[in-house]
Amino acid sequence: MKVYSANITLDTTREGDIVDVTPMVERVVGESGVREGIVLVFVPGSTGALTTVEYEPGLVKEDIPRLLEKIAPRDAVYGHEKTWHDGNGHSHVRASLLGPDIVVPVTDGRLHLGTWQQIVFLELDVKPRRRTLVVKILGE
Amino acid sequence: MKVYSANITLDTTREGDIVDVTPMVERVVGESGVREGIVLVFVPGSTGALTTVEYEPGLVKEDIPRLLEKIAPRDAVYGHEKTWHDGNGHSHVRASLLGPDIVVPVTDGRLHLGTWQQIVFLELDVKPRRRTLVVKILGE
Amino acid sequence: MKVYSANITLDTTREGDIVDVTPMVERVVGESGVREGIVLVFVPGSTGALTTVEYEPGLVKEDIPRLLEKIAPRDAVYGHEKTWHDGNGHSHVRASLLGPDIVVPVTDGRLHLGTWQQIVFLELDVKPRRRTLVVKILGE
Repeated sequence: MKVYSANITLDTTREGDIVDVTPMVERVVGESGVREGIVLVFVPGSTGALTTVEYEPGLVKEDIPRLLEKIAPRDAVYGHEKTWHDGNGHSHVRASLLGPDIVVPVTDGRLHLGTWQQIVFLELDVKPRRRTLVVKILGE
Repeated sequence: MKVYSANITLDTTREGDIVDVTPMVERVVGESGVREGIVLVFVPGSTGALTTVEYEPGLVKEDIPRLLEKIAPRDAVYGHEKTWHDGNGHSHVRASLLGPDIVVPVTDGRLHLGTWQQIVFLELDVKPRRRTLVVKILGE
Repeated sequence: MKVYSANITLDTTREGDIVDVTPMVERVVGESGVREGIVLVFVPGSTGALTTVEYEPGLVKEDIPRLLEKIAPRDAVYGHEKTWHDGNGHSHVRASLLGPDIVVPVTDGRLHLGTWQQIVFLELDVKPRRRTLVVKILGE
């Protein structure tokens, strides 16, 4: 049983970017040599989130963004903005609801995802960011 | 320290099924022999989700379904459907928000849940499905 | 590789309390001696939740509460209340959506959070509660 640690760095281009990080996480699983276990992918930061989705344009470009806009609209009034004036109150609220962590099983040395299921990072901040995701793999 | 892997197979009967999988997960914890650790329950697939709830009819048959319908209504327009015509755009959106994973502590060889707290699988797809949940237990 | 278990007990003062538990979790990580691994924080119970947020008054006192009230309003009709009359149907629904678990990486013996990111417990029940959070640290 061991722990394998890695970072995944990516540059987002704009608010609402949904990035398929599955290939990067799969590569780290391969490097780790772990055959059975779990992988945690985590974003340090409070304006990004991780989940899974079928990575196709309808969901990624239209439906998920529409859900987020409905839940926490960009042009609502946020207490966060009264203090910080950085225009990203909605980003924080969305990130807390979606959560910064995802844990996926590793079976036979591979991510145990569905055929139409990808791990995605959601850029919820209002500007492009360099993001460093933290990956921890535990197993044997 | 070890990893113990198992699958839980179940047949859902319709969209909106909320299945109490606690007894099945508890059985796997018993088989594993792990006394202290964690258990991951994960659904491979992008139209199901895992969380916990007090498993009683009011919440399971009325309140949670109403929340999901409010967040992502069945009859809204989804980009996903324009391409795929499978009528489950709302299923995907709900699944991404709730998430495909739940991690529960194991203490003294048992799931460390509250008295009125059960682990549930939510069938969010628009038809009955055979679902195989993946369980990974890590501990000693 | 080892497992380290601990509890964190706290008394909430009212519905909607959002408690920064980062210092308590950080202390447990220190006690564990784990340098690389993961930490699970979990609430046994179905009317509380865990996530991360930038812990500042605008988000904690205004924006997150407003989101929760929007998603599952206090004065809506809940099937849960028809049976149980404990007035916390909205609490259960909110808790299931946010989730009872958070998993955070441990790197160099410390929580691997963002600078402006804290681990929080949300008291979603309608009265003050004594809460005992369960912490499991796995790593080496």
